[in-house]
Amino acid sequence: MTDSAASLTSLETPAAIIDTVRMQRNIRRMQARMDALGVRFRPHVKTSKCSEVVRAQILAGASGITVSTLKEAAQCFDDGITDILYGVGMVASKLPQALALRRRGCDLKIVTDNVDSARAIAAFGAEHGEAFEVWIEIDTDGHRSGIRPDEPALFDVATVLHEGGARLGGVMTHAGSSYDLDTPEALAAMAEQERAGCALAAERLREAGLPCPVVSVGSTPTALSANSLQAVTEVRAGVYVFFDLVMRNVGVCSTEDVALSVLTTVIGHQAEKGWAIVDAGWMAMSRDRGTQKQKHDFGYGQVCGIDGAVIPGYILSGANQEHGILSREGGMDSDIAKHFPIGTLLRILPNHACATGAQFPTYHALAETGEITEWSRLHGW
Amino acid sequence: MTDSAASLTSLETPAAIIDTVRMQRNIRRMQARMDALGVRFRPHVKTSKCSEVVRAQILAGASGITVSTLKEAAQCFDDGITDILYGVGMVASKLPQALALRRRGCDLKIVTDNVDSARAIAAFGAEHGEAFEVWIEIDTDGHRSGIRPDEPALFDVATVLHEGGARLGGVMTHAGSSYDLDTPEALAAMAEQERAGCALAAERLREAGLPCPVVSVGSTPTALSANSLQAVTEVRAGVYVFFDLVMRNVGVCSTEDVALSVLTTVIGHQAEKGWAIVDAGWMAMSRDRGTQKQKHDFGYGQVCGIDGAVIPGYILSGANQEHGILSREGGMDSDIAKHFPIGTLLRILPNHACATGAQFPTYHALAETGEITEWSRLHGW
Repeated sequence: MTDSAASLTSLETPAAIIDTVRMQRNIRRMQARMDALGVRFRPHVKTSKCSEVVRAQILAGASGITVSTLKEAAQCFDDGITDILYGVGMVASKLPQALALRRRGCDLKIVTDNVDSARAIAAFGAEHGEAFEVWIEIDTDGHRSGIRPDEPALFDVATVLHEGGARLGGVMTHAGSSYDLDTPEALAAMAEQERAGCALAAERLREAGLPCPVVSVGSTPTALSANSLQAVTEVRAGVYVFFDLVMRNVGVCSTEDVALSVLTTVIGHQAEKGWAIVDAGWMAMSRDRGTQKQKHDFGYGQVCGIDGAVIPGYILSGANQEHGILSREGGMDSDIAKHFPIGTLLRILPNHACATGAQFPTYHALAETGEITEWSRLHGW
Repeated sequence: MTDSAASLTSLETPAAIIDTVRMQRNIRRMQARMDALGVRFRPHVKTSKCSEVVRAQILAGASGITVSTLKEAAQCFDDGITDILYGVGMVASKLPQALALRRRGCDLKIVTDNVDSARAIAAFGAEHGEAFEVWIEIDTDGHRSGIRPDEPALFDVATVLHEGGARLGGVMTHAGSSYDLDTPEALAAMAEQERAGCALAAERLREAGLPCPVVSVGSTPTALSANSLQAVTEVRAGVYVFFDLVMRNVGVCSTEDVALSVLTTVIGHQAEKGWAIVDAGWMAMSRDRGTQKQKHDFGYGQVCGIDGAVIPGYILSGANQEHGILSREGGMDSDIAKHFPIGTLLRILPNHACATGAQFPTYHALAETGEITEWSRLHGW
């Protein structure tokens, strides 16, 4: 056992382990790519929700951050980050929170894709003497929110904001359907679709005499697959910081890049079924079964030894709240109790790092030296 | 809008709402049933992980509690509850925590189903002069852990504990596969299988001259379906306190019994697809898709008005981290933006209350008067 692995034996299980060597490598890889493509990089902190992780991203060269909740924005602002994009469509009821952050000095940008919210933002801003910076959300792949680049609504929303006294900061899009792809060609095509759609929206606004300084695109798969980011000013991505089995199946990382794992203990067996029972159930792994429809279904996760090395062919094939069922893929292990005795410590790589992280109030960050540090994680809204 | 519903408009979304009228009704129903069947009732607090909810269960007549983590045990003991069953198989590494609780006066019972852990419990107890009370876990439906009632290992484990100085407290089982059923006949048969198997294990131990005072069975579906609980001394159940859409599909509650919902706001539309976008994604609902294989697939949840009344035919058909996609089942709503305008507050009933609750640090408990109280929820291990 390496020194690094040995230090994990002191932890109670289940625990969320961050391999900081892998995490730093993932951060450097993405930042270097963005630097080479000549765009700013604005990581999405919804994956880690952790001050120490975000600090590492900023230190590596990130320009501001993206958040998925205003609570994340408040925490990151308290940590000294001012350039923050709240990436979920604004509604009237959340404007007081956004205003409060701006009044404290936070350079918070907000997002909308509809006239009703645009009107509410402009009216609330006028009432409080605050020119909100608003980015218009563009739909480049039909998977969720946003205005299609060719829709007339783009001008309606922009005009309401511009004439209502808000500041038109730019356009942003997220090609989340890239998660459904798994070939370099398809990913590159989706990256180009994301880029071209968002760039087109910006162009149309500018042609209409409206300001659109920022063109913001991104998802982890497209960010790592784009051949050109012409006309794009910044990229956003989240899950790359830890990666996970879904991203491994998409093809943008290897299993050996996954920086988040759940430390667990073997607590029992059903030997005649080839099962070992571990104390990481779905409460630890989350209910995310994102690899179910992908080319390799990892159940609730890939089993690794305490040193983080994959144990090929063994997955969490089932999960109850606090019980995980470990078994061999494609054929029973008739010697499961011998291979995984009671008390064995294992690390399970998750399907989806954002979902698994959310199950834990703290991460245990494991350094190359074996030193373990507790890093707090934000929970709730 | 009722007074009760009106008070919800003051909350930030997403928020986890407990309808306390429904919750109290669920608690009374289960306790009355257990009283009528002549058994003690030991609720599983893993569903709520909330002191106020557990207090209501105890006040209604519960005899002790079941926990899924030792952190729940510590919190409940701090709340004044001493009779606690830790329902997950004990391993050596958790014995110091268990010992610490017992030394503080907690009447903690622990569980095992294998000789290795039994030996560890006996040895650790002998070393520290502590006679742990141990219940042997019985497998009555093949879904997870436990020793089958007819396995010789039953005596091996019991003997190691008994001769090693531990206190044999009884046998316990959980027929979790009852969640896969959906007819009264199948549920009653599973309840009888659970009862008979656990009773048989107890009988065999007693015939061998070993003590077995407790015969503990239960799951919400079997507890509500058993016709006889002969030879059973206590029942355990968890999710009945809130119920959920999985339990509705199993057939042991109606949609109108579900006491947990997620308050959410409409933040956008994709009108040409018949989508409303809400601010409850999977981070709020959890990734649990428990109704996917059941007779009615509710996607990520059933849509209700702010008053809690079901809006028939509308579900969360998709979810990203902070975005839910609301749509009509079986056919597009071409007037979605008119039916669900921006800013509309809705309540979403969850597939699985245990999983949805876990996404929130606090519940908002809604009384019949409309009064809202924040109830804290335990997170992590």
